[in-house]
Amino acid sequence: MSLLNGITEPADLRRLPADQLPALADEIRDFLIDAVTRTGGHLGPNLGVVEITIALHRVFDSPRDRILFDTGHQAYVHKLLTGRQDFSRLRARNGLSGYPSRAESEHDLIENSHASTALGYADGIAKANQLFGTQDRHTVAVVGDGALTGGMAWEALNNIAEAQDRPLVIVVNDNERSYARTVGGLAHHLATLRTTRGYERFLAWGKVALRRTPVVGKPFFDALHGAKKGFKDAFAPQGMFEDLGLKYLGPIDGHDIGAVEQALRQARNFGGPVIVHCLTVKGRGYRPAEQDEADRFHAVNPIDPYTCLPVSPAVGTSWTSAFGRELLALGGERADLVAITAAMLQPVGLAPFAAAYPERTFDVGIAEQHAVASAAGLATAGLHPVVAVYATFLNRAFDQVLMDVALHRLGVTFVLDRAGVTGNDGASHNGMWDLSILQVVPGLRLAAPRDGAQLKAQLREAAEVADAPTVLRFPKGELGPDVPAVERIGGVDVLQRTGPSPEILLVAVGALAPACLDAAALLAAEGFTATVVDPRWVKPVDPALVRLAAAHRLVVTVEDNGRTGGVGAAVAQALRDAGVDVPLRDLGIPQEFLAHAGRGEILEEVGLTGTGVAAQTAAFARQVLPGTRTGSEEYRPRVPRK
Amino acid sequence: MSLLNGITEPADLRRLPADQLPALADEIRDFLIDAVTRTGGHLGPNLGVVEITIALHRVFDSPRDRILFDTGHQAYVHKLLTGRQDFSRLRARNGLSGYPSRAESEHDLIENSHASTALGYADGIAKANQLFGTQDRHTVAVVGDGALTGGMAWEALNNIAEAQDRPLVIVVNDNERSYARTVGGLAHHLATLRTTRGYERFLAWGKVALRRTPVVGKPFFDALHGAKKGFKDAFAPQGMFEDLGLKYLGPIDGHDIGAVEQALRQARNFGGPVIVHCLTVKGRGYRPAEQDEADRFHAVNPIDPYTCLPVSPAVGTSWTSAFGRELLALGGERADLVAITAAMLQPVGLAPFAAAYPERTFDVGIAEQHAVASAAGLATAGLHPVVAVYATFLNRAFDQVLMDVALHRLGVTFVLDRAGVTGNDGASHNGMWDLSILQVVPGLRLAAPRDGAQLKAQLREAAEVADAPTVLRFPKGELGPDVPAVERIGGVDVLQRTGPSPEILLVAVGALAPACLDAAALLAAEGFTATVVDPRWVKPVDPALVRLAAAHRLVVTVEDNGRTGGVGAAVAQALRDAGVDVPLRDLGIPQEFLAHAGRGEILEEVGLTGTGVAAQTAAFARQVLPGTRTGSEEYRPRVPRK
Repeated sequence: MSLLNGITEPADLRRLPADQLPALADEIRDFLIDAVTRTGGHLGPNLGVVEITIALHRVFDSPRDRILFDTGHQAYVHKLLTGRQDFSRLRARNGLSGYPSRAESEHDLIENSHASTALGYADGIAKANQLFGTQDRHTVAVVGDGALTGGMAWEALNNIAEAQDRPLVIVVNDNERSYARTVGGLAHHLATLRTTRGYERFLAWGKVALRRTPVVGKPFFDALHGAKKGFKDAFAPQGMFEDLGLKYLGPIDGHDIGAVEQALRQARNFGGPVIVHCLTVKGRGYRPAEQDEADRFHAVNPIDPYTCLPVSPAVGTSWTSAFGRELLALGGERADLVAITAAMLQPVGLAPFAAAYPERTFDVGIAEQHAVASAAGLATAGLHPVVAVYATFLNRAFDQVLMDVALHRLGVTFVLDRAGVTGNDGASHNGMWDLSILQVVPGLRLAAPRDGAQLKAQLREAAEVADAPTVLRFPKGELGPDVPAVERIGGVDVLQRTGPSPEILLVAVGALAPACLDAAALLAAEGFTATVVDPRWVKPVDPALVRLAAAHRLVVTVEDNGRTGGVGAAVAQALRDAGVDVPLRDLGIPQEFLAHAGRGEILEEVGLTGTGVAAQTAAFARQVLPGTRTGSEEYRPRVPRK
Repeated sequence: MSLLNGITEPADLRRLPADQLPALADEIRDFLIDAVTRTGGHLGPNLGVVEITIALHRVFDSPRDRILFDTGHQAYVHKLLTGRQDFSRLRARNGLSGYPSRAESEHDLIENSHASTALGYADGIAKANQLFGTQDRHTVAVVGDGALTGGMAWEALNNIAEAQDRPLVIVVNDNERSYARTVGGLAHHLATLRTTRGYERFLAWGKVALRRTPVVGKPFFDALHGAKKGFKDAFAPQGMFEDLGLKYLGPIDGHDIGAVEQALRQARNFGGPVIVHCLTVKGRGYRPAEQDEADRFHAVNPIDPYTCLPVSPAVGTSWTSAFGRELLALGGERADLVAITAAMLQPVGLAPFAAAYPERTFDVGIAEQHAVASAAGLATAGLHPVVAVYATFLNRAFDQVLMDVALHRLGVTFVLDRAGVTGNDGASHNGMWDLSILQVVPGLRLAAPRDGAQLKAQLREAAEVADAPTVLRFPKGELGPDVPAVERIGGVDVLQRTGPSPEILLVAVGALAPACLDAAALLAAEGFTATVVDPRWVKPVDPALVRLAAAHRLVVTVEDNGRTGGVGAAVAQALRDAGVDVPLRDLGIPQEFLAHAGRGEILEEVGLTGTGVAAQTAAFARQVLPGTRTGSEEYRPRVPRK
């Protein structure tokens, strides 16, 4: 790896003669395939941007020029070229982040992995350069074609186009990562024609349909895809960008370093906003893909458009697949049930439902706001929508949940996958906000099923609610065995009592029930008796839970969510309102952005394992319960701060 | 008013002969001008849609067909034609809502006043009609040109275009309500050409620039405006909508009932998604406007694009103007300060800053997400952005505050106007969420200034923070006199002590300080002593506040925000974490959607006046403080539920 080893900063890259660049690209691909197939990570997207990234760092002078990667998982090559070649602990604790990280390098700027943000940052940076009179510092945003379908991207483009004297280079990495299921009208025609290879029909039709310039959003980008297939000269829709005020360069072969460099140099020297449209192939140079043309081009394995990782087929034991199976069953029983996803059909488990009920499945693109607002419309018309989304991405649609669904008392079920700590994808993927911000939504009901049986039961309960939003949330990963209840009091499941009249009420939220049962056993060994309950519906707080609390001497709530304003805070308020003065302590994730690490590692670090809960509870109990029981030293979780 | 009086439902309207419609329109205008100038309300926008609304109800069969008004303040004519002609208590308690209201009428569907939502609902309803096989039930969304600039609208259009066999009529009410300050590239050309009347230059340039079809967003709509000025035949950009898959009809004179009816009938019968582009004049038929052509067309009085009400010039005593003046001063001292608004320059008080520092002021359109993401970019580049926005609208950008600003530890100041109860504009305008949802944002600092002096001081403190977001929030309305502190302990201002060693700690958040001082006086009369403090920065909770709490026997927090997860909950958690077991009670707005009424009325109803705080505090004190002090009967606030 002589060439790559010689590059410790972009300046080294710029000194390489152009004829050595293809060899460097080969080395980088070999490195990535070797490293990422060991650690796991985003291989395909990074193989697709090898040449673009080389060209970017040869044409621009990072960090003085600022290169912004949207969604961020395609920055591995960028890392290799900016002094970070130890990939041995990629995405693992204390290893390289799978995303840009400002702590790692001054060449990194955006850490947020939510889509469609880079253009907004870029607009701000370009405005700053104009104010500072430093327009020779270039601003470059690298975005995928999919990210341009989000509303944020359009808001940004509209602003970027405002000033012709404000340089900004937008590199569209168009890897034809298809959102084919959500095509618009024009795109539908194009997609049909592409698959049937009906070139002549296409040409005849295209003369009419493309006489004027397409278009916006997915239809537009599918039109670009169409252009790739051989019609670019006739139909490439430069006009739209140029009329908007964005100089358009392209389409460029994104695997031809010389061509990309030339386009970037033109863009750099233009002095205003420019789009450089690069066509790339995801997985380029990866032999398993190359040996199977069909696989590479038709994406037999579904791809998670956020992580760009292949999605494992449902193995029958994950939270996701358990939800998917039950929704499929429910769909057979209720014709009014419809499902909505924001470009995540497979990762959120909707594929079985979609296969059985395609007409009742709506993939709206990377557009969480529209997912929720259109759900409000569907519910207005008498259907029951199930919106399935990663917990962290629901934040994009908080206003719509509050105003469009809850204010209108509409029956919409939200299913939040990857709630709580997700881990390796870092701070912006952890779903640690929902149990807090959703508390404020009037009328909304919120459940955290503890096991597969509850997931099924509560999904059915949620789908019965016709006049309010309901939310189910569950974590990433595999389902454990069901956790039976010994008794149901009101809506609260009692899971265990470790004595006849226990002192401590352990309120176990969702998937942390097994950890709380472990904790109860450990506490019993230290002489503390406990009742472990699962409140099932954590909002509103069940009056039975308040009565149970009043019958104990210490309440400890345990949730896989930020501590601030979560279930613990809600229970504490309910106790205050009822005049119940039993001491309460609330365990959860410290309200910090967590550095990437495994889910299990993080749960251990923040004290949300059986041992951690037991130790913290024992410490509280020694403070507030009379009669000293000696025990282990004070437990203090170690919080992995970013 | 014979014609109007005869209309109690749309069927009556449909029975009227066409030649009587102009007289009806005149009657409606007279009615609106008479009624709304008495009560206040959205006069101009409703005068602009008289003919469109008449035509809608003649062509479509509401409520079987569904007519959805975006942003909702232009539904007065709709109310008059659907059986609601008592406008005597418009926007007042127990009177008609200023927005559509499902409690008022089966003809009303969307109550949310946040912009750009109707297309999302409409897409959902149209999808439902397709599933139900009730495609003869028509779906009509009425949206302003401004609302189409939001990202939600684009996400929706992209989905609406998906199916050619899914009927949906989009009526664009294009009243040229200008977002001129935020024009894009093409629009800049058009605007220049319009004002200079350089027709020939325009024609010559247009042949090149418009050879292909424009365009997206504001540039596009400014292009439509350009078309209105006389070039519509040559340049009207139907092509964009049609290529997207939306049949385009227009532009139509929105004040010609026959023309609008004809277009709507065509649209209704088309069988797929159709845009009907209507040109209207805001304030049409309002004599004061008609007597002054310049006023009507050039909008000398700034218009609040959300409320469409004229914005009063700063009178020198409102929270808004006090902020505006201080920001202007700060702008003179610090060249790195920039200001951002989402199409609300005047209503949020940025006009003085913008006049002095136009190059440092950015109006991004109705695009809160971009306001925050571009602020992140500006801060990345070393500037200090001040994002000024109504509190309720920040919900649209929660994800961006969390991930783009806070995760990146960027110094951005958010100034939330109209925080707390706003009242007459109803549930979706109340800013009662921010003190709760912002609690979860790591590193974010949050202040609620109690008076003008604190507003100035805390704005300066906020602008000094370079590594975290800060938020100031203050209510609608006039500033009272400054409330001096008797002592500062840590960061906490002690405002009053009604005894040498008071029992009760009253934590007064922001503008409720005077009410808490009144309460303390009333409590003293009942024999309870209190310390009234203003924590100033409510997040993070000041350790000094915890120490103060520990020195009292009851803590009562008082905030103009939903009770759930707000300041009270945060203080309670801080006390728990510190092992301080002093009883706490948290007063705030019940976590309900509040019906419209005056701010003062609502504050009284929910118990956030001096009397209400005193009565509730006394009731708590009798529960938890030993030694019975008799007093008034138990106080129970009446909550005005929607």
